[in-house]
Amino acid sequence: MHMKRKKIDIKKIDRNMDGKNAGSEGLSWHSPKKQPFHIAGLPWFQEEGLYRRLPIKPREPIPKSVDYLANCTAGGQMRFRTDSQRLVLRIKKHGSFHMVHMADTGQGGFDCYIGAPGKTTFCSATKYDSKLDDYELVLFKHDVSETRMITLNFPLYNDARQMEIEIGLAPGAKIEAPVPYDNAGRIVVYGTSITQGGCASRPGMCFTNILSRRINMEFVNLGFSGSGRGEPEVARLVATVKRPAIFVLDFEGNCHEPELLAIRFPEFVDILRKAHPSVPILTVSKIRFASTLYEPTEAAKTDRCRSIQKEEVRKRILAGDKNLYFANGYEFLGKDFDECTVDGVHATDLGFLRMADALEPYLRKILAKATVSAVKTKR
Amino acid sequence: MHMKRKKIDIKKIDRNMDGKNAGSEGLSWHSPKKQPFHIAGLPWFQEEGLYRRLPIKPREPIPKSVDYLANCTAGGQMRFRTDSQRLVLRIKKHGSFHMVHMADTGQGGFDCYIGAPGKTTFCSATKYDSKLDDYELVLFKHDVSETRMITLNFPLYNDARQMEIEIGLAPGAKIEAPVPYDNAGRIVVYGTSITQGGCASRPGMCFTNILSRRINMEFVNLGFSGSGRGEPEVARLVATVKRPAIFVLDFEGNCHEPELLAIRFPEFVDILRKAHPSVPILTVSKIRFASTLYEPTEAAKTDRCRSIQKEEVRKRILAGDKNLYFANGYEFLGKDFDECTVDGVHATDLGFLRMADALEPYLRKILAKATVSAVKTKR
Repeated sequence: MHMKRKKIDIKKIDRNMDGKNAGSEGLSWHSPKKQPFHIAGLPWFQEEGLYRRLPIKPREPIPKSVDYLANCTAGGQMRFRTDSQRLVLRIKKHGSFHMVHMADTGQGGFDCYIGAPGKTTFCSATKYDSKLDDYELVLFKHDVSETRMITLNFPLYNDARQMEIEIGLAPGAKIEAPVPYDNAGRIVVYGTSITQGGCASRPGMCFTNILSRRINMEFVNLGFSGSGRGEPEVARLVATVKRPAIFVLDFEGNCHEPELLAIRFPEFVDILRKAHPSVPILTVSKIRFASTLYEPTEAAKTDRCRSIQKEEVRKRILAGDKNLYFANGYEFLGKDFDECTVDGVHATDLGFLRMADALEPYLRKILAKATVSAVKTKR
Repeated sequence: MHMKRKKIDIKKIDRNMDGKNAGSEGLSWHSPKKQPFHIAGLPWFQEEGLYRRLPIKPREPIPKSVDYLANCTAGGQMRFRTDSQRLVLRIKKHGSFHMVHMADTGQGGFDCYIGAPGKTTFCSATKYDSKLDDYELVLFKHDVSETRMITLNFPLYNDARQMEIEIGLAPGAKIEAPVPYDNAGRIVVYGTSITQGGCASRPGMCFTNILSRRINMEFVNLGFSGSGRGEPEVARLVATVKRPAIFVLDFEGNCHEPELLAIRFPEFVDILRKAHPSVPILTVSKIRFASTLYEPTEAAKTDRCRSIQKEEVRKRILAGDKNLYFANGYEFLGKDFDECTVDGVHATDLGFLRMADALEPYLRKILAKATVSAVKTKR
C-alpha cells in the first residue's frame, strides 16, 4: 500500500466544492439546550441534557454496541423560530465516523430546513472540513427579515459524547418556540443501520427525518448500526420511551437468522404490549437487498424472515390485537431497488425517499384510526 | 480546533460497514487495457492508453483546471463478458479527492453492474479503506458459472494519473468482448461538477452512467467540476471527440453570469457546428438549486440564463438548423427539487435518477429522428 501523495485541492478549482465560509462576525451565540429551543428525537434529553438517544445509565445492562451507538445523534433535531437574517452553526467535536460509503456531511454534519410543518424546504448543509473535529459554518444569510421556523437535523453517524453546539443569530433577533406538533405523541422507530440513516448524504434525508417533515409529530430514531438485534433488554428500554404514539419495528436487517428472529420478534412485541397494551405497532420487513438478485439462499432467507413477521402479526390480530400492522419492506424500493443503495444494503437518499413514500400512508392510516378510537373512547 | 481523538471503530460494531473482504486467492490477474476488455467513455484511450478524459497534449492550451480534472475518470467503464464465478478488483492509487459532501465510494471507488444492455442490475461497490491509496476487493463470488456481461464504472472524483487496475478472475475463466453497442456513435456530455457526477454515492449513479444502462451506446462524460465554463478552446477540443452521435451541453451551472453565457453559449454551438454540421446538439439548462427558494436575485439570474439558451436554440432552429434541441433542466428534479441535492447544488443519487429520467426521452427522440433521417439519406 502506498502513502498518500500530495494532491491538488479540488476546492481551489471548484469553489462550490469548498466547505468553508465566513460570516459569523458580530452574532449572538445561543445554546440549543436552553428554552425556547426545542430538542426533538432524543427522548431522554429533557431529563439528562445529553445529545444521546438512550439514557446514560439504562436500568438494566444493554449490549455494549447499542450503548455506544446511542451516542450517534440520528433523528435528533433543534427546532425554533427566529427572524434572524443570519444563522451560523458552531460545532465542536462532531465525532463523525468517516465511513467510506457515506458522505461525511451525513455522518458528522447538520442540515437546515426552513418553514412550517408541511411547507418545510431544504436550505443548506454543513460542508465542513472533514479533516477537523470542529466547524463553524453559515447556514443562511437572508436579505429579508421575517419569522422563520427552523429545523436543524443532527448528524447520523457520530460519537456525540463530547459534541458542543452553539447557534449564532443576529444580535437582538427574536427567538421563539417552534410551531407546535399536532399532538404530543412520539413515533418511535427501532431498527438497524438503515434505520439510523446509513447511508444518507445529509441528516435530513434519513427516512425518519423525511417523515418528520410530512407528519407533524416527534420522531424518535432508535436505529443501531449492525446492532438492531431485537434483544429483550433493548425491547424493555424502547418500551420506556414516554408518550409513544406508534412503535415501528424495523430490525430484520440485523436479526436475519430466521431461527433467531422467530424468537426475538414475538418476544419484542410481547414486551411492548406488556407496557403499552394498545399503542399501535407497525412491523416493517427488510428492504430488498441487491444480493437477492444473485444469491438464491440469501433470497430464500429473506423470504422466510418476512413470513415469520407477517405470520406473527396476522396470528396476533386474529387473537384480538387490533393495533398491529405489517408493511412489506421488501417492496418499498420498487422495481429498480438495486439502484437505491450504495452497497446493495444501505439506502441512499433515493432509497430513503422511497422508504418514506411507502411508510407515510401506513403511518397516516394508523394515526387516523387511533384518533377515531380516541374520540370513541371519550364518548 | 481539536486534534482527532481515538474513536471506536464502527466496522467492529457493524460488519456490514466494513470495507475489507478477502477472497482473491488463486485468481488470474488481467489488465483491462488489453483486449478483449473494452474501455468506454475515455475517447482518447485507444490512442494514448491512459485513464484520462482528454488527450494528454491538447492541440491548443486549455484551462489548467480542465486539464487537471480530465484525470478524473468520470464516465469511464470497463466492459467484458466472463463466466468467472469470482471477480476481484485490485486498484493502486485511486486518487480520491475525499470531499466532505460525497461518499468516498463515489469519488475513488468502482461499482459493478451485471447483465446485458437493458437488463443490467447493480451488484456491488468497492467499500475500501479510505485511509489507504490502494484496495483489493471482491466484487462478486457467484455459486453458478454462467457467462455474464460485466460493467465496472470508474471513479468520479479522483486523480487517476497514477492509477493501476487489475481484474482478478478464476483461472481459465472465459473472457470475451462485451455485448456490442447498438451503433458506434457516442453521446458526448459537456458540463459541470454535476455532469461529472458530484455527488453520486457510487460511480454508477452519475446520470451519464445511469443513461448508459438504458441506451446501449457509449457515453462520454466531459463534466469538469467548477470548470465547465464553455471556453472556445475547450469547445474546439470537445468537437474532436470521434464518432459523436449527440452533443449534450450542460454547462450553465459554471457559466452562470448571463453576460458571459450570452457570448460563450452561441460560440460553443458555432464551434461544434463548424466541425459537425448536422450532429444533434441537446442543450440542457441548469437544474434548480435550493437558493432559488431563498434568493430572488439568484432565481432571476437562473431565469435569464435559461432564456438565453432557449432563445438561442429557437433562433437557430428558425434559421434552419434542424438538429438543435433544448431541455429545461430547471424542471428535471420535480416539485421537491430541494430534496435532490446534498448542498442545494450537487445532485445525490435521487437527483441523478430524476435527471436521467428526464433526459432519456429527449435522447431517444433525437436518436430515433437521426435514424429516420439516416435511412432517408441512404435512399
